[in-house]
Amino acid sequence: MAQKPSIPKGTRDFSPIEMARRNYIFDTIREAFGLFGYKQIETPSMENLSTLMGKYGEEGDKLLFKILNSGDFMKSVNHADIENGNLPKLTNQLCEKGLRYDLTVPFARFVVQHRADLQMPFKRFQIQPVWRADRPQKGRYREFYQCDADVVGSDSLHNEVELLSLIDFVMVRLGINVAIKLNNRKILAGIAEVLGAEDKIVDITVAIDKIDKIGLENVNRELLEKGLSEDAISRLEPILTLTGSNAEKLDRLGSLLSASEEGMKGLAELREVLEGIEALEPKADVEVDFSLARGLNYYTGTIIEVKAKDVEIGSITGGGRYDNLTGVFGMPGLSGVGISFGADRIYDVLNQLNLYPDEISASVKVLFINFGKAEARRAEQIIAVLRRAGISAQLYPDAAKMKKQMNYANAEGVPYVAIIGEDELKDGKVTLKNMSTGDQQQLTSEELVELLGAK
Amino acid sequence: MAQKPSIPKGTRDFSPIEMARRNYIFDTIREAFGLFGYKQIETPSMENLSTLMGKYGEEGDKLLFKILNSGDFMKSVNHADIENGNLPKLTNQLCEKGLRYDLTVPFARFVVQHRADLQMPFKRFQIQPVWRADRPQKGRYREFYQCDADVVGSDSLHNEVELLSLIDFVMVRLGINVAIKLNNRKILAGIAEVLGAEDKIVDITVAIDKIDKIGLENVNRELLEKGLSEDAISRLEPILTLTGSNAEKLDRLGSLLSASEEGMKGLAELREVLEGIEALEPKADVEVDFSLARGLNYYTGTIIEVKAKDVEIGSITGGGRYDNLTGVFGMPGLSGVGISFGADRIYDVLNQLNLYPDEISASVKVLFINFGKAEARRAEQIIAVLRRAGISAQLYPDAAKMKKQMNYANAEGVPYVAIIGEDELKDGKVTLKNMSTGDQQQLTSEELVELLGAK
Repeated sequence: MAQKPSIPKGTRDFSPIEMARRNYIFDTIREAFGLFGYKQIETPSMENLSTLMGKYGEEGDKLLFKILNSGDFMKSVNHADIENGNLPKLTNQLCEKGLRYDLTVPFARFVVQHRADLQMPFKRFQIQPVWRADRPQKGRYREFYQCDADVVGSDSLHNEVELLSLIDFVMVRLGINVAIKLNNRKILAGIAEVLGAEDKIVDITVAIDKIDKIGLENVNRELLEKGLSEDAISRLEPILTLTGSNAEKLDRLGSLLSASEEGMKGLAELREVLEGIEALEPKADVEVDFSLARGLNYYTGTIIEVKAKDVEIGSITGGGRYDNLTGVFGMPGLSGVGISFGADRIYDVLNQLNLYPDEISASVKVLFINFGKAEARRAEQIIAVLRRAGISAQLYPDAAKMKKQMNYANAEGVPYVAIIGEDELKDGKVTLKNMSTGDQQQLTSEELVELLGAK
Repeated sequence: MAQKPSIPKGTRDFSPIEMARRNYIFDTIREAFGLFGYKQIETPSMENLSTLMGKYGEEGDKLLFKILNSGDFMKSVNHADIENGNLPKLTNQLCEKGLRYDLTVPFARFVVQHRADLQMPFKRFQIQPVWRADRPQKGRYREFYQCDADVVGSDSLHNEVELLSLIDFVMVRLGINVAIKLNNRKILAGIAEVLGAEDKIVDITVAIDKIDKIGLENVNRELLEKGLSEDAISRLEPILTLTGSNAEKLDRLGSLLSASEEGMKGLAELREVLEGIEALEPKADVEVDFSLARGLNYYTGTIIEVKAKDVEIGSITGGGRYDNLTGVFGMPGLSGVGISFGADRIYDVLNQLNLYPDEISASVKVLFINFGKAEARRAEQIIAVLRRAGISAQLYPDAAKMKKQMNYANAEGVPYVAIIGEDELKDGKVTLKNMSTGDQQQLTSEELVELLGAK
């Protein structure tokens, strides 16, 4: 019996209309990256496991897809490890390579490997799929695209401003209203420092994040349970309840953090970034948000998160500044800042709000009906002219019944149908039917090119 | 000690300039596919091994990259198979998934899985990487892109004509002079038939292919060794030595093949395809070549191969008609015809002949020198205007020494450098330096947009 075909769970086929929409998103992002001076690179889907392992924590190691060695993959396998069921060791014996888990580690590896050929600061972008053996669920896939832009080798906060401007540019082009939320890791460290609770920075940040949902009392109880002192909790309260404009929040937190050098540095950085982006009059709302703690163990300065304002969905873009990207590959001291567009979530937003331009379509602009050999040959010649003029066109390949061909045109959503029958062949004309209005007109091939070429 | 980073053998990193060139090729092909009415799909990088295994022969099964199961991958492993070193069984126990080996099998799987949603004839294109555990060598990689266009569900030879027209269109756009070679599997079968040697079709085809290189006598000796009768060999001779125009070759072979119905059908098909493409006046040479035997075990009708005329390199595009694409997945009787552009070889041809348009560049059009905070802020505002006008621009992120910034501009090959110093800030002007001529001029920001926006 023939197999009933399926695809691995957590993976997807993309249909023509889905591809047209995804290309619109990727092309928009790619063009923006180029206009902003980011340069595209690509890295192999497979990296050596030695490059990937240990970079994403113990859990990440498990979520890497590993590739079985070619040839006699059993030859390095230690039978004692089979007996003991030592999976990590067996993995290393069976597999040398794994699939890319994100674009950051391959980028770091790329920078170190090609350092002699790169100008610093190096602005790179990369749009490629990544693979994670996560449990699949709604909106979470085992293969998905990341769209990353990073600049390494420059500490200037101009880079942050440029990335925020890039986010605004892309969202304006896509028609998505967004709020860009900004924080700085040094501010979070400063808060923990003035409370005398440097080791509680994660708990404090989580608490700040929850206050809208569970209220001040519950937050305070949680912090007490986590071991924060009553004194610290009472001094955190004015920070938890900060409101007002960006300037007001920065001013108030400034007076509370004055004892922390690191906190004040974070505030100064955040101020400069804010001033920079506001001077460019972005369409996006730009909001200071001290509860933003994205990638807390990774970012060392600016933290960025972007929310769509008109759809309930998680963050659609995020990023921040990090130190020492390449240290693990033997090139210490390289700082950088980057953002990552969440293509799948952006796709969901555009679908929900139906924000695609009308031109986005998987069908050709005009289908020529096939009435037989002589008519088809004439159609092919006109079609060649249309294509050279950038107008997508095709002939129905078989001289099937008119009804069948028109059904095909309808099902495909083709906007125009062109007819070259016996009469048209004699007159040297084409009958063009507008499929949405039903209007028909007789045109020369020059008139046809002109009409279909107009937007 | 830090690891010295590297990538798996047979894989590649692509630098910004390589990406710019590759994008030019892929964008050209993608646009052409769209203009010709082919619709893009994408399939997952991973397929179930049950989808892939047995589709590429025994050798192909070995060249598939298999993915180690997640979690306790040892739990289904049979210890007797370990003892016996039964690698095929162990592979199936350790791995459920493999990486895509080509785009044809996933396309067949896609068609069957989504048959209810597809209009026939279905014209699809697909541009994605594939993976093969081949021994890497010059020009052969373990990860490389395929660019396939196929139409299934139509037997019309119009599809062949359209695909030839598509090849011509792409090669004209890329500036590559090509010869398109055409044959038909039924002609090869017909030759074997009239010689009374149906089972020797492969040997006969190989012989025809070799005659230019090794001469008639050696070919005849080889055929004798392969078991072809002396009588058959003498009757093959006039076919081996066919010369002349396409029409002459077709006519002469026609009189030799008149006893074979299949052979005559192949000749009629080839004639119709030739007439169809010649009526469209292609720039490519289109040549009948009875020695063309590409994919002999796979193609059932038209066979297509494309050679670059100005570079010594193998075929840069190929394809043909096949029957029963989807039979193995339980959907018999679906015929199709398709072509595949060899992106890596096309890339090599463009590199060797230096055929890239001048605009292909990884750098921005203009770099703004950074003289400090006030000047940089003004620069950022002008840069935002340029980008909105579609002109790529960036500010050097740090207020570094002028020499360092100019060195960066030179190393990056930036065509223009813009300067906003104290004077320009006062006058509201920008000094623009053309990096190839050294010319400088003072411009308003409107003049700047106009000058840089011009092609």
